[in-house]
Amino acid sequence: MKVNLKAIADSLNLSISTVSKALNNSHEISTVTKKRVIAKAKEHNYQANPLARALRNNKSYTIAIVFPEIDNNFFSLIIKGVENVAHNKKYNILIYPTNESYKREKSSLALLGNGRVDGVMISLSSETKETSHIEALIKENTPIVLFDRVNDKIQLPKVVTDDYESAFKATKYLLDGDCRRIAFLSFSNHLSTNKLRVIGYRDAYLKTNILPDPGLVISCGNNDQKNKETILNLLKFNRPDAIVASVEKLIAPCYDSCKKLNIKIPDDIKLIGYSNSQIAEFLNPSLSTIVQPAFEMGKEAASILFKLIDKKYRKPEPQSVVLSSEIFIRDSTTAM
Amino acid sequence: MKVNLKAIADSLNLSISTVSKALNNSHEISTVTKKRVIAKAKEHNYQANPLARALRNNKSYTIAIVFPEIDNNFFSLIIKGVENVAHNKKYNILIYPTNESYKREKSSLALLGNGRVDGVMISLSSETKETSHIEALIKENTPIVLFDRVNDKIQLPKVVTDDYESAFKATKYLLDGDCRRIAFLSFSNHLSTNKLRVIGYRDAYLKTNILPDPGLVISCGNNDQKNKETILNLLKFNRPDAIVASVEKLIAPCYDSCKKLNIKIPDDIKLIGYSNSQIAEFLNPSLSTIVQPAFEMGKEAASILFKLIDKKYRKPEPQSVVLSSEIFIRDSTTAM
Repeated sequence: MKVNLKAIADSLNLSISTVSKALNNSHEISTVTKKRVIAKAKEHNYQANPLARALRNNKSYTIAIVFPEIDNNFFSLIIKGVENVAHNKKYNILIYPTNESYKREKSSLALLGNGRVDGVMISLSSETKETSHIEALIKENTPIVLFDRVNDKIQLPKVVTDDYESAFKATKYLLDGDCRRIAFLSFSNHLSTNKLRVIGYRDAYLKTNILPDPGLVISCGNNDQKNKETILNLLKFNRPDAIVASVEKLIAPCYDSCKKLNIKIPDDIKLIGYSNSQIAEFLNPSLSTIVQPAFEMGKEAASILFKLIDKKYRKPEPQSVVLSSEIFIRDSTTAM
Repeated sequence: MKVNLKAIADSLNLSISTVSKALNNSHEISTVTKKRVIAKAKEHNYQANPLARALRNNKSYTIAIVFPEIDNNFFSLIIKGVENVAHNKKYNILIYPTNESYKREKSSLALLGNGRVDGVMISLSSETKETSHIEALIKENTPIVLFDRVNDKIQLPKVVTDDYESAFKATKYLLDGDCRRIAFLSFSNHLSTNKLRVIGYRDAYLKTNILPDPGLVISCGNNDQKNKETILNLLKFNRPDAIVASVEKLIAPCYDSCKKLNIKIPDDIKLIGYSNSQIAEFLNPSLSTIVQPAFEMGKEAASILFKLIDKKYRKPEPQSVVLSSEIFIRDSTTAM
């Protein structure tokens, strides 16, 4: 049985308002009455309704994370980092995976104004090209932090990784290892992360006197089946000597296509991919990876969000925190 | 700027109560006033405070998932399944990963009574041995569904997989393939899932005239470093000819230890593991897996929870839904 204020008030023959004030230790209520109310509340194991308390305090003690995918090592590790910080602050976490849909992202954000949450973290869906839905939330003075997939047109704190540098370094490593035709498997061309990675890839070529084949920047997207076909066709008809896979979900189709076409990694083609999988080391061959510090990103983004919520910043707020990725070289890029 | 009822009331020189009634289309308010209020609300893009609405309707339109780990393919896929159903019901999802801690599980459940959520899904932490914290939530009439890691002492709807059968089949397959010394890497001995898997493993032996070595049921747990040492020691000092890994996180240490000790999979030792990783096929060698239908489990558990919330069941409520796992045989159990 749930015991509410009314039940306590009725059983003591007091008004609800008196009971409420007594439980909040108001000076308007006598010590004797307070003691009676507290005793009765304890007896019935009364707990304040958290929504009523949230309304009263104008604080929900809840944050929301709006992000592309739940079944994705990178984003789960970020959420783990957020949770690490939120738990210490005794905050609850609502999750809104968008499944890479702009429509879902928009409808999720529409739920989050008006006091449901105290702050919001957003990583944009691959379909998101405009940001009026985020601006609407900004207008309501909701504290917001963007992470990983951001949009530079919006003035908000952002936590990202060194997308340009990591793609530059990976490409340069392959060029230094005598690869000439390096394919870049891009993911959703308008994403901030993807744009920077493609520029990093191109700039690595610019530092050499080798001309990149523009046909080797390959557009992949949310359709797994289509990605498979795209990669298979690339290997069949415009074979590169190396591949940089810009997201984890493009790695399995690379292994798969090479197996099908009997192309040997790393002898016939070298492969490096952005990945947070702990199993990269045991793939056949073991995979060279670019590892983003996902857990730390989550912690950093959450820390900034809580500072915004607690109004700990003087204006202007911090604009961009960039964390470094790390490259791990394994057999998939080393000729055996 | 957030616009609340008071601001609208002030600007129209009406009482808050009148504005509230007008927006709720009360018969007490004249059509003229209603029109004025609605126009003003539209002008200021007023939206009802979701917490206030939740309190009024005694519905939070929110469910909570209390579960062991966020950075875990199995649980992320389950959450994806839950989200699939919750989204259609226009419900929000709070997540409480316990990081396998009983204390965290207990403190999370303590937050969830008293109207914060309309229903709760729970998968027990590996430390959880008693269930008074769940019984407290049952007493508050909170709809609850247990999933995967359940406790048979509690009368609640449960969604599980065929733990006994899947372990039995995997072990029998290895016995039929002439393995004699099959190690079972168990995970947290008191978990329902683990108990059933160990019995399935033992019963497969019982169907043969081979006596299992009791020293081959190996206790693993939450300490990754300790698991590594346990597996390394097993291979060094009591070498089995096959391993069944009962959770995904025990697979990488198996590959790792075999590599270190130069033990060849599958020639020297066969390996099969419970896993939802899409990359199993590309491991070296490719991994035979027992795949639990995680996404479907999430959907099923959420569907049952919403039926409980919507009071669609006659008593007694359904007790246990068992979904079947599937075994995929790959190179790690096939002699080359």
